Amino acid sequence: MNRTATRKIPLGKISIGGSPKVLVQSMCNIKTSKVEEVSAQIKRCQALGADLMRVSVLDREDALALPELVKRVDIPLVADIHFDYRLALTAIESGIAAIRINPGNIGGMDRVALVAEAAKAHHTAIRVGVNAGSLDASLAEHPSAEALLLSAKKHVGMLESCDFHDIVISLKASDVLLTIEAYRKASEAFPYPLHLGVTEAGPKDIGLLRSAAALSPLLLEGIGDTIRISLSEEPEEEIKAANRLLHDLGLKEDYFTFVSCPTCGRTEVDLVPLAKKVLGYLEDHPKKIKVAVMGCIVNGPGEAKEADVGIAGGRGSYVLFKKGQVTKTIKEAEAYDCLIEEIEKL
Amino acid sequence: MNRTATRKIPLGKISIGGSPKVLVQSMCNIKTSKVEEVSAQIKRCQALGADLMRVSVLDREDALALPELVKRVDIPLVADIHFDYRLALTAIESGIAAIRINPGNIGGMDRVALVAEAAKAHHTAIRVGVNAGSLDASLAEHPSAEALLLSAKKHVGMLESCDFHDIVISLKASDVLLTIEAYRKASEAFPYPLHLGVTEAGPKDIGLLRSAAALSPLLLEGIGDTIRISLSEEPEEEIKAANRLLHDLGLKEDYFTFVSCPTCGRTEVDLVPLAKKVLGYLEDHPKKIKVAVMGCIVNGPGEAKEADVGIAGGRGSYVLFKKGQVTKTIKEAEAYDCLIEEIEKL
Repeated sequence: MNRTATRKIPLGKISIGGSPKVLVQSMCNIKTSKVEEVSAQIKRCQALGADLMRVSVLDREDALALPELVKRVDIPLVADIHFDYRLALTAIESGIAAIRINPGNIGGMDRVALVAEAAKAHHTAIRVGVNAGSLDASLAEHPSAEALLLSAKKHVGMLESCDFHDIVISLKASDVLLTIEAYRKASEAFPYPLHLGVTEAGPKDIGLLRSAAALSPLLLEGIGDTIRISLSEEPEEEIKAANRLLHDLGLKEDYFTFVSCPTCGRTEVDLVPLAKKVLGYLEDHPKKIKVAVMGCIVNGPGEAKEADVGIAGGRGSYVLFKKGQVTKTIKEAEAYDCLIEEIEKL
Repeated sequence: MNRTATRKIPLGKISIGGSPKVLVQSMCNIKTSKVEEVSAQIKRCQALGADLMRVSVLDREDALALPELVKRVDIPLVADIHFDYRLALTAIESGIAAIRINPGNIGGMDRVALVAEAAKAHHTAIRVGVNAGSLDASLAEHPSAEALLLSAKKHVGMLESCDFHDIVISLKASDVLLTIEAYRKASEAFPYPLHLGVTEAGPKDIGLLRSAAALSPLLLEGIGDTIRISLSEEPEEEIKAANRLLHDLGLKEDYFTFVSCPTCGRTEVDLVPLAKKVLGYLEDHPKKIKVAVMGCIVNGPGEAKEADVGIAGGRGSYVLFKKGQVTKTIKEAEAYDCLIEEIEKL
């Protein structure tokens, strides 16, 4: 089932599913009871392009902080809860947009019914999040796509038996091929929106590759209504990465395109530090623009011409391109300032 | 055409195409005439898992350095040449495994015939490398998959008319969707092995995502005989990334699997620096092993149990898992040394 055919689920002021739009999310890594710090982190992520954020609710202190947190931020929040149905009820009553909980882990159908009823009354969505690392041992000795799907069906079935249907599903594994297979199966099996992600993807160098390797084929097949790029990094980095991936796949219009060459024996300027600095600026000030930072005159002008603003290096200097036209030659030392000035003008 | 159905082309002591094996390559970023430095870089890349390396031949000095370079290293080299057929002839005579040149750019069929004849005599492969940034303006005003294919056909046709068929083809663009479309078309159009890559992919943060987003769907469809992950970084980083991507997609058995959690409000150890340090060690000492560095007890033990060696964090300490069994508790400060010791033992 592709993303336009999934069920549309309310998520605070927005919705998820039933739309080509893929929502970007991450998870706060600060204890939720520290409302000041957590809300600041959420706002930073929102400025970078987060559509929603998840916060972990480890204890009563965290759960009681939710009403104040919900008040302070204006994107939907998802409360991450494990095992404790009372924390789930408190979170739902706080006005949170969604909770993430696995109904099979909270101690029986009576408690599931209580949570489902409260969620229905408060229009709270429930994300069922199955994880290869914590699969029920009775389902499979080792994680498999079938076991992930079976586990999701069990949890989802418990909510459906309470006539609850505002469900989002994730099936996370750290293995790329397992992830792809599990989500393809889930997309056929469920009418609900899917939250895509690779779990335990690792630090940036390894996590970006692994997440893109798994999510790109799925997103291109029309599978996935929201993504998280899990990294062993700050959530801000996850948001930047998620936006970039969606933009690269043609699924996020309103973002920047940045090209810079890999450098080679032909390069006669110190390109990489400049490219990184310009990229950093664009990430912090995202807008719909194409920028090219190129090292030499072989492929440089071609790429630079296709950009809104571009530079192509020569010997210790750059040629500046604006909308396909050479406008001037700039000294290497002035390249950054000159480029940013042009970007700001656009 | 999938990778097992492509033509098998000799490449020095190895071959490319006609096999499920996807070769890993990068390009040196040191002037080729600096034989000492370039050969050291090639050897570093080989130790990290490079199957072949490309070197740029900008001038006669570079071309004349090739025989010595070929002698010093024992993986196939590809000489990157633009426009100058005399450099191509000198490179071919040096015993290099392949040259990269676009026959349409060297000044007419007489010169193409000379180069093709020399390449045939020396069993030198020729990579035709079409690039969206330097497409012939007569083919298209703006780069498109059709224009890339048309351009490749023109260059390849010139070699074929000289009865030369030891051809590898690349069609590079910086755009993910354009890259995917162009290679799908090329895979249908040509019997030759394909070199996959996204050009001008940018610094690591952006380039890893973009390359994986484009290459993952293609590789999973069976398209691609060699890959380069172009980054505005050192070639060593490109090799590590290419190996990781292939391994994640099940296309490289002999490499390590590393999982580490994204950290969240539950984490009570300083996980990220440890995860990065362990990852760095594994990249420098690649072997077939699965290692998990996990922050907490929710998903940690599950993942750690699936690993050959794994740790899951608690409050200022870790539990060590070996082949699914808890073996001991270790202090946070001793975690790195203890983990490396276990990895070395395996």
